[in-house]
Amino acid sequence: MNDIQHQINFINEIDQLKSVYRQTRVKSDNNRAENSAEHSWQIALTAMVLQPHIEEQVDIQRVTLMLLIHDIVEIDAGDTFAFASEEIHQQQEQIELDAAKRIFGLLPETQGQQMLTLWQEFEQAETADARYAKAIDRILPLVINMSNEGGSWKYHKVTKAQALKRNQFLQQSTPALWQYACEQIELAVKKGWLVAE
Amino acid sequence: MNDIQHQINFINEIDQLKSVYRQTRVKSDNNRAENSAEHSWQIALTAMVLQPHIEEQVDIQRVTLMLLIHDIVEIDAGDTFAFASEEIHQQQEQIELDAAKRIFGLLPETQGQQMLTLWQEFEQAETADARYAKAIDRILPLVINMSNEGGSWKYHKVTKAQALKRNQFLQQSTPALWQYACEQIELAVKKGWLVAE
Repeated sequence: MNDIQHQINFINEIDQLKSVYRQTRVKSDNNRAENSAEHSWQIALTAMVLQPHIEEQVDIQRVTLMLLIHDIVEIDAGDTFAFASEEIHQQQEQIELDAAKRIFGLLPETQGQQMLTLWQEFEQAETADARYAKAIDRILPLVINMSNEGGSWKYHKVTKAQALKRNQFLQQSTPALWQYACEQIELAVKKGWLVAE
Repeated sequence: MNDIQHQINFINEIDQLKSVYRQTRVKSDNNRAENSAEHSWQIALTAMVLQPHIEEQVDIQRVTLMLLIHDIVEIDAGDTFAFASEEIHQQQEQIELDAAKRIFGLLPETQGQQMLTLWQEFEQAETADARYAKAIDRILPLVINMSNEGGSWKYHKVTKAQALKRNQFLQQSTPALWQYACEQIELAVKKGWLVAE
């Protein structure tokens, strides 16, 4: 099999991300569940649009690719709700790693290895690129919940402390967005979309 | 209103692309219609994955942004089927331009102007970046139709000549993909998924 055929097989395989559904709802489409493919589009574009607020040195092309592939493992592992227990998140880790190896393994070897490494970098969130990607992965659901009367926060009775903790990633890479998130979280508490405690 | 709020308004506005449906079907999800948001995700990632086959000098970051925004005008203009008449395509032009001005106009001025210019560059398809982006916009439906027993080709009785003409964009930027497309089109004719004439 030549490289093109390997790459086409990968493109066909990832088509399945369009049928992995998340907790977030699509307001413009009768509040149906959002799938991870359309989420991945919006998050990559959000990273580009909010780029002027980055304070660390970031390679936006790597960040974009990271975000385009960040959820691909859900084809095998399913979506884990952001506010699920620590135990559930830990159980998912090995399943997701196996999924990443299988799916990126469809690509020509060097290319697959690069993608796997990039996906792991995102998961570990220790580089500036991964920190910014994670920051955007945090703020986008906040933006969507704020536009949708609390959305998945309200439905799952998420607390202010949980929302703040989850958005802390913003602090280092994009302090301006962290400030915005804090303001929005306060507003959400006032509106009763987040539990005040 | 500060820049962040303008950018968040843009991100909320483009959420509607998740409710613009296309002719292509999602095989893994009961053959439902594909929406333009998830299509935009797959096409951006496809451009990155097939990058090793580019023969022109291309800035992949510009190409990626081009593809992430290429369908945003459909929020106002709707999706036009690739094989619709020339007349219909021409009627859509002004509607799409107005849509681009309105939607990119939600962003801070300089950023909005950059996006509008990039979108127009894609439409005109005269630069190497736009040629590669268009090439990927051509080959992805071919890949999906081939994986789905002819898909929208078969449903709309598309001919071999139409499919070849539509994929010609591949010739200049990625001859290896053009060769692949020609082989796949021959195969589709044999299977009865494209009309031979």
